[in-house]
Amino acid sequence: MKFLSFRAGGAARYGVVDGNNVVDLTRRLKYPDLRALLEADARAEAERAAKGATADFTLDQIAFDPVIPNPPKIHCLGLNYDEHINETGLKKFPYPTIFVRFADSQVGHLQPIIKPKLSDKVDYEGELAVIIGKGGRYISEAEAYSHVAGYSCYNDVSIRDYQNHASQWTPGKNFPTSGPFGPWMVTQDEMGELAPKQIQTRVNGKQVQSAKFSQMIFPVPKFIEYISRFTSLAPGDVIVSGTPGGVGYRRDPPLWMKAGDNVEIEIEGIGILKNSIVAET
Amino acid sequence: MKFLSFRAGGAARYGVVDGNNVVDLTRRLKYPDLRALLEADARAEAERAAKGATADFTLDQIAFDPVIPNPPKIHCLGLNYDEHINETGLKKFPYPTIFVRFADSQVGHLQPIIKPKLSDKVDYEGELAVIIGKGGRYISEAEAYSHVAGYSCYNDVSIRDYQNHASQWTPGKNFPTSGPFGPWMVTQDEMGELAPKQIQTRVNGKQVQSAKFSQMIFPVPKFIEYISRFTSLAPGDVIVSGTPGGVGYRRDPPLWMKAGDNVEIEIEGIGILKNSIVAET
Repeated sequence: MKFLSFRAGGAARYGVVDGNNVVDLTRRLKYPDLRALLEADARAEAERAAKGATADFTLDQIAFDPVIPNPPKIHCLGLNYDEHINETGLKKFPYPTIFVRFADSQVGHLQPIIKPKLSDKVDYEGELAVIIGKGGRYISEAEAYSHVAGYSCYNDVSIRDYQNHASQWTPGKNFPTSGPFGPWMVTQDEMGELAPKQIQTRVNGKQVQSAKFSQMIFPVPKFIEYISRFTSLAPGDVIVSGTPGGVGYRRDPPLWMKAGDNVEIEIEGIGILKNSIVAET
Repeated sequence: MKFLSFRAGGAARYGVVDGNNVVDLTRRLKYPDLRALLEADARAEAERAAKGATADFTLDQIAFDPVIPNPPKIHCLGLNYDEHINETGLKKFPYPTIFVRFADSQVGHLQPIIKPKLSDKVDYEGELAVIIGKGGRYISEAEAYSHVAGYSCYNDVSIRDYQNHASQWTPGKNFPTSGPFGPWMVTQDEMGELAPKQIQTRVNGKQVQSAKFSQMIFPVPKFIEYISRFTSLAPGDVIVSGTPGGVGYRRDPPLWMKAGDNVEIEIEGIGILKNSIVAET
């Protein structure tokens, strides 16, 4: 199944998408949002409610919100593909590199990425987002997949000068609209095995990143185990799993995103997350 | 005035403390918690409600919660005192170093700091916490103090091996109970000028850190301006302003906190935040 968060008629909603059709679960279930549905472990109830329901909207009638607009925590991995480590020249560590994004940096599919007036160093990073369904601490690698609700595309847009103002990357990873997340969550059962699946990033239609998830240095179960050592994971938490090689700032000449550009993150088995760049006014 | 968050009779409450007396505002105002009171800009209303009210509790009848148990964001500064930069040997950057703490790492005054079973590298960091009263983006240095609700003590407890597993410090700064925050918030007007005030950290009664806030490399208005460039600040946000020299891991021999130890952060004009170390079972 594919779950999504969206707005229609001005109200925040969530539902299930099937082809071009959207079933609004907000009016069928008691949970106020997708995070609450995950917290209630009510995906089976959602499936029953959506089954055979008449579609409420088509995709062109809605505005996409971030898949989870209000994650309790967003953990982001850096340096999780060798090709990206090599291009950055940064040190390879024996543990995952974890930084934090705030929920209000996120934006939905087809919503604009606002290029800050303070910087011209706007860079894409195509990534797989992992959405937690069942919380916990000290989750073992072997149990990790049972804690995953599903997957989506994420563009970990980075304002490179702010990222490198000091040693910690927080400023460059938290500008408003710098976290496109969508278009929907594909559930774990529908996604199947991750390793052979491909992720691609395209800028104005031209491929700039491409990798398979088998190339992750720390695969999903490894980083879930690691993160749950130092903090609890909760339903609706999002883990953004790192970007492959090919980022703009390590190209010669650098490829910075500018107003009018569009960027697509495509993940096999999920779909395409697309956003355009608009200058801050 | 001094605002605090606490539990009594099992329920989460907030109120005003005067000497040994606590006036419970939860039963007098419509706001569910201190963050909601700040969001409603209702400090004057709180003052009227508390004035002349009979105390509901004395301090020994309550359990302290973190001053703001649910900050929308917790920004932490690293490397904001020269003595600390010198002892760490880390690079001095021209911009503030900002990392993130999650709200569920926080703990109240007199609550135990749990030493993780995964690490013996538990270190104290005494710091001034700044609590935002009025939100905003692009806040200028000149306007910054008008966005501050008040101040408290913070112990930015660091699990040093996890902090240095990779380049980003998130894991070492987010273990449960590693963020003691209290005992209360002293309002901006009562606190007065920060620069001449002193902060001290004591472990088992012995002073290990001491500085004046005039020694901050980036003073409060500077870092409020900087943070509000890349993200919005909101009422109830907390900014933890960095630790002076004297941390345990740079001592010879290193001073690690172990079960049974107690640590106090004292700030002139606020009071003492005290917590004891208990081993995780």
